[in-house]
Amino acid sequence: MRNIKIVLEYDGTDFAGFQSQPRRRTVQKVLEAALSRLFHSRMKIKAASGRTDAGVHAAEQVVNFYTSKTHTLHQIVRGLNTYLPEDVSVQSALEMPADFHARFHAKNKTYQYQIWDGTTRPALERKRVYHVPFRLDMTAMKRGAAVLKGSHDFKSFCSASASSKLRSTVRHIYHLKVLRRKQLIVIQIMADGFLQHMVRNIVGALIEVGRGKITTADLRHILRARDRKHRGMTVPPQGLSLLEVRY
Amino acid sequence: MRNIKIVLEYDGTDFAGFQSQPRRRTVQKVLEAALSRLFHSRMKIKAASGRTDAGVHAAEQVVNFYTSKTHTLHQIVRGLNTYLPEDVSVQSALEMPADFHARFHAKNKTYQYQIWDGTTRPALERKRVYHVPFRLDMTAMKRGAAVLKGSHDFKSFCSASASSKLRSTVRHIYHLKVLRRKQLIVIQIMADGFLQHMVRNIVGALIEVGRGKITTADLRHILRARDRKHRGMTVPPQGLSLLEVRY
Repeated sequence: MRNIKIVLEYDGTDFAGFQSQPRRRTVQKVLEAALSRLFHSRMKIKAASGRTDAGVHAAEQVVNFYTSKTHTLHQIVRGLNTYLPEDVSVQSALEMPADFHARFHAKNKTYQYQIWDGTTRPALERKRVYHVPFRLDMTAMKRGAAVLKGSHDFKSFCSASASSKLRSTVRHIYHLKVLRRKQLIVIQIMADGFLQHMVRNIVGALIEVGRGKITTADLRHILRARDRKHRGMTVPPQGLSLLEVRY
Repeated sequence: MRNIKIVLEYDGTDFAGFQSQPRRRTVQKVLEAALSRLFHSRMKIKAASGRTDAGVHAAEQVVNFYTSKTHTLHQIVRGLNTYLPEDVSVQSALEMPADFHARFHAKNKTYQYQIWDGTTRPALERKRVYHVPFRLDMTAMKRGAAVLKGSHDFKSFCSASASSKLRSTVRHIYHLKVLRRKQLIVIQIMADGFLQHMVRNIVGALIEVGRGKITTADLRHILRARDRKHRGMTVPPQGLSLLEVRY
């Protein structure tokens, strides 16, 4: 069997997330339908680098699947882009060793969250940003980001239902950048793995820091508490994109 | 009467353009409906800086209207943003002298056109870019842009139906920039005025130059011919945005 890795891009707006669910439009479902049409047989993917929630976008999601068909990589990319709906596309395909697994072998992933802190609501970017109608303090947010960098138990930033099922909630954040481009604040987080809602809960806490509602010391306290009861808000999904997966 | 200037942002995807038309959803129609709700009386705008076609976006469209009501500018911005649909928003409002006219007094406008020249189709940016599945030659396009800068009769780049009604089809292009950010090519044109479809026809011609289908000399010939019969393609509207209006 050939093991094919593909890189997908999608607009999460009209999807109930990546993973298949009964009677919901998901990325996995439209992808497996396109694969099945292309290969004239019922296809399932083996793995994706991670699940994205409903409304979350991906500039680069990585998936692998097995096939014994002889289509060239070029035919796979073209064929899938013909059968996929316009809000998903395949950017590339690559032949991998038999043991390659899109989730287990991912060394790190980068997510991006976009906040719009103008006083008036955005129209053009409304499906890509979270609108916070208060000017956020970048210096405070950058100080807050520094607290979270490195290896920590991020249980305080993981949805309670998910953390109860995990052996470990320790993750390593390599980069946590907070940048401003006029009224757009871009937060990029690269880590060896992400807990459920981790990015959206971290961004929620950084917004509280940026509004002056909590201090950097409070943030350190929340991190050390290892308890989601200390939670701030979980920011909405449309500001979030999976940006890059490295192997 | 007070003369109020407002700056609008809109996502053109679901609009049949700016200008009111019977039984079509237009920006002018939803704006006048919001103004009428805010002021509890039937409102019409006086002018917009220019019309945008169906599917064309605006980061900054300028409109003016008259009112004798005493709402503060802040109340006007907030009220309109409450009544406008999510794909239009008001960014600011300003009180102007009685004779200010959003179209006649515009000194220059800047439009932006986005081309995606990756081999695979874009999913995330599909409503903001025109996908050309050929690598375009930036050097050739920049040389082509230089031919069009300055004062010229742009009749060859104006839709035939519109140019027949105009006294003059001479316009002055102050800037015509062609930039690349990875697979995204951004073309920005600042001019004292624009003919119907002028940006989309210029971009169409520059794409032909970038593909090597026509030379810079051909482009100069087309410009001098002052005849739309020499036309290339009119690129689709979703790549186009009205970026800035200066007074």
